[in-house]
Amino acid sequence: MGSDYAPVSEIMGAIRAFDHLPDNTSIEIIFVGDEKRIGLELDKHKPTKLRYSVCHADEIVLMGDEATIALKKKRNSSIFKGLELHRNGEADCFMSAGNTGATMATATVLMGRIKGASRPTIGSFFPTEKESPALVLDVGATVDHQSRFLYEYAVMGSIYYKQMMNVDRPKVALLNVGEEKSKGTEEVKKAYGLLMESDLNFIGNIEGRDIFNGKADVVVCDGFTGNIILKLAESFFGFFKTKVKQYADKSIINKVKVALTVPTLRDVSKGLDYQEYGGVPLLGINGVVIIGHGKSSPIAIENMIYRAVEIIRSDVNKKIEEALN
Amino acid sequence: MGSDYAPVSEIMGAIRAFDHLPDNTSIEIIFVGDEKRIGLELDKHKPTKLRYSVCHADEIVLMGDEATIALKKKRNSSIFKGLELHRNGEADCFMSAGNTGATMATATVLMGRIKGASRPTIGSFFPTEKESPALVLDVGATVDHQSRFLYEYAVMGSIYYKQMMNVDRPKVALLNVGEEKSKGTEEVKKAYGLLMESDLNFIGNIEGRDIFNGKADVVVCDGFTGNIILKLAESFFGFFKTKVKQYADKSIINKVKVALTVPTLRDVSKGLDYQEYGGVPLLGINGVVIIGHGKSSPIAIENMIYRAVEIIRSDVNKKIEEALN
Repeated sequence: MGSDYAPVSEIMGAIRAFDHLPDNTSIEIIFVGDEKRIGLELDKHKPTKLRYSVCHADEIVLMGDEATIALKKKRNSSIFKGLELHRNGEADCFMSAGNTGATMATATVLMGRIKGASRPTIGSFFPTEKESPALVLDVGATVDHQSRFLYEYAVMGSIYYKQMMNVDRPKVALLNVGEEKSKGTEEVKKAYGLLMESDLNFIGNIEGRDIFNGKADVVVCDGFTGNIILKLAESFFGFFKTKVKQYADKSIINKVKVALTVPTLRDVSKGLDYQEYGGVPLLGINGVVIIGHGKSSPIAIENMIYRAVEIIRSDVNKKIEEALN
Repeated sequence: MGSDYAPVSEIMGAIRAFDHLPDNTSIEIIFVGDEKRIGLELDKHKPTKLRYSVCHADEIVLMGDEATIALKKKRNSSIFKGLELHRNGEADCFMSAGNTGATMATATVLMGRIKGASRPTIGSFFPTEKESPALVLDVGATVDHQSRFLYEYAVMGSIYYKQMMNVDRPKVALLNVGEEKSKGTEEVKKAYGLLMESDLNFIGNIEGRDIFNGKADVVVCDGFTGNIILKLAESFFGFFKTKVKQYADKSIINKVKVALTVPTLRDVSKGLDYQEYGGVPLLGINGVVIIGHGKSSPIAIENMIYRAVEIIRSDVNKKIEEALN
């Protein structure tokens, strides 16, 4: 209920997914939220293939709410009730395009952490010059950086990437200010040592310029840096479009030139769209939680559903627990 | 001598600057480096307006060299000898498009720090949606983040921005993972407090997405984060061009569409070029040191010369010392 287009994107996305899933699928969606609004939206579409039920929740965690609000005050929110369904085994997964901090905090308390995982972590896919994206983590779950956390992100990210992208030994890199092992803060240098000793396919340090060129499949950094680079990268295309618009506004000739350019730019930028990857995983907790962008479109929600199914089927958490212990 | 196109860019850039400076200018360039190679390059152009002399240096600090190499081993390098000229008062400023770390380390040891400046810092201009760029600092001089350092970067950046961009009270922001003052690491939260109490025009925390939209004139962060976002931002346009090329390679129609697009993209991207700003200052040391990109073109060098003149004339260091004490 707390995403920018809730519950429209959520419901339309689920309908889209069931249009593509096999007719005999055992998958079922539980919509958690205001049953009236959900009912009204469903009435608009009259879906025939969608298998669903509704769990009423009459509170909403807003985007600006504190991370602990669902735990402390809004126990009737869709985030709390949905995660409760997951914890009680009534749902195999919880998905939300709402408040990330609240989803993470509530999930961590309700489900607990995987044994050996010091902190939960959120990954995010960055587009690259190669066919496959790079998974950057942590992108904001934990702002403090400790070498052990960085090592664990690498383990969790590597397992997740392997399962989702069908890459046998994903290339893992440590995001740093230079390639030499002497670079970075004390904790980053220690993390370099831990990663060198590990069984991971660790390719060493990479710099900020190496994320888009796809040198690594899994890029590890602290959540402070990761959150800032994620938001910077997401803003670039909008910034570029503004610059194109400013250029067009300078003269009629420029306007014509830009008009010829726009369809091509739109085509190219499609491949850079975060929505393709359909949400990001919250790793390190005893559950399957997928976090979508606040502005998730129906397509993003649809892709989140496919992703959730893959994660559940591949038993990522069991593999993470084994690797960390 | 250590930049990618040395000494060609350096000499051509100086010639360009003197073509635009008034005929009666008192400015003079001292080229520091291999006198033979410098002589050969000058012979090609036979400049009539350039006022210069040559200081011979027969060693070169390479891009891959350790930051301390000029201090420890290459005392005949152009970096060491050039900074020595500046320290001895024979030059009012030192400029280099060579090894940044070596320039910074050598400058810090030879010139010393400004009283009250705990660490030297390097700033970098980021293009924005507004007319004026944002100065982000630190972009890599110091990877450790302490609240006091962040506060000092804000003071130094604010004074520098004011002088260079003619903005009376530059808007200063702290780069963070959210806008609320409770966000970020302990040191970042402490820095927020220091900035709130200061006389600076502090507008609060900004997120990664706010750099390009020009919310702030001066953006403060630790050198680890700053270095990574600088290199990420610099790589974006190249990444985008690769994606355009990949799109063109898919079909003949796409090739034609892209051919129509390229001149417009080139025009738009001109405004995003780091070379416009001609180098970045090394702030916090007792001297005027400008650091250029390794790939500096003659235009970048030309702009570095204008920038150096502005810094010397506006006595930025004296103002920084007053503000920090």
